[in-house]
Amino acid sequence: MIPVAVSNRHVHLSQKDLEILFGPGYQLQKLRDLSQPGQYACQETVTLVGPKGVLEKVRVLGPVRPRTQVEISISDCFKLGVRAPLRDSGDLDGSAPITLVGPVGSVTIPEGCIIAARHIHMSPADAARFGVKDRDKVYVRAKGPRAVTFAEVLVRVHENYRLEMHVDMDEANAVGLQNGDLVEIIPGGEPVVRRWC
Amino acid sequence: MIPVAVSNRHVHLSQKDLEILFGPGYQLQKLRDLSQPGQYACQETVTLVGPKGVLEKVRVLGPVRPRTQVEISISDCFKLGVRAPLRDSGDLDGSAPITLVGPVGSVTIPEGCIIAARHIHMSPADAARFGVKDRDKVYVRAKGPRAVTFAEVLVRVHENYRLEMHVDMDEANAVGLQNGDLVEIIPGGEPVVRRWC
Repeated sequence: MIPVAVSNRHVHLSQKDLEILFGPGYQLQKLRDLSQPGQYACQETVTLVGPKGVLEKVRVLGPVRPRTQVEISISDCFKLGVRAPLRDSGDLDGSAPITLVGPVGSVTIPEGCIIAARHIHMSPADAARFGVKDRDKVYVRAKGPRAVTFAEVLVRVHENYRLEMHVDMDEANAVGLQNGDLVEIIPGGEPVVRRWC
Repeated sequence: MIPVAVSNRHVHLSQKDLEILFGPGYQLQKLRDLSQPGQYACQETVTLVGPKGVLEKVRVLGPVRPRTQVEISISDCFKLGVRAPLRDSGDLDGSAPITLVGPVGSVTIPEGCIIAARHIHMSPADAARFGVKDRDKVYVRAKGPRAVTFAEVLVRVHENYRLEMHVDMDEANAVGLQNGDLVEIIPGGEPVVRRWC
């Protein structure tokens, strides 16, 4: 069984954009560690601005990255009027533009705004146990009154990863999932139909 | 294949509550017909108020019903601070209280606020074609980059029903579904795993 982590909208900043938004030489201030080792929520928040609306107090996650990446949900896309594509983290070429506003300045990135595709983090030991490898796609069953099977869930394997399935707020609310709820990989491939016989 | 209809938050009113909110003797004004015969969106909207927040301009659907029923999503529950249960339409006993505010008055219903469970409307002819009957539960596959299989989808059969699967805004956004997108019932029962062999 795999614990779920629900990702609310958030921002990863480059050092360059961090300094535009918060001031020259600014360093991120850690608020609390996240479950994936080395990742943390910061005290800093920004405002996202799109052609049709605004989202305030969007959390910045650290540490800084080579490129600024904004992760929002489809609901957020409607509010902002932004047509972000569904992408894996880091796959930003040709993704949506968006404006970020901080206490010192603002920046409009020409690309970097995405809807993050659901995915599972796991260690090599977990991967061996589940019989999967890095970048496999798996089916995942979530139980409960709004049970679903998620198709085509990306598996990411790294020795620093802690076992966890990441879904966004729309997916969590659609299924009634909360942090720590357990889901399971359907072993062996695509689900097909059990014939009555 | 079954077309999808996405239900945003909405309200069905009793004549008594309609008159409290809009005035004595008030009659609903039709805005446009909905896809299910006899159902229509009204010109009237109300404000929903919960302990933690407010949702404005929530559409009233007609005609009036014996009991007032408020249908919201899990996202809306968080915004309002309301703990609505997941229910089939009409199953209101013991559901959540909520306050409705109109231009003339307000009413706090002691129960009637629900998260509507996804369901499929179909005619008896469609039911025969799919091999299902009223109140069956079926699995439904939605394709695309965020493909899922919805488990336990309620089937409602009536000669006045037009073939359509109703999902709420959270479910639509989680899967990337829009009005008119096509989904399919998985025939024969629960999906199981295809073994590699």
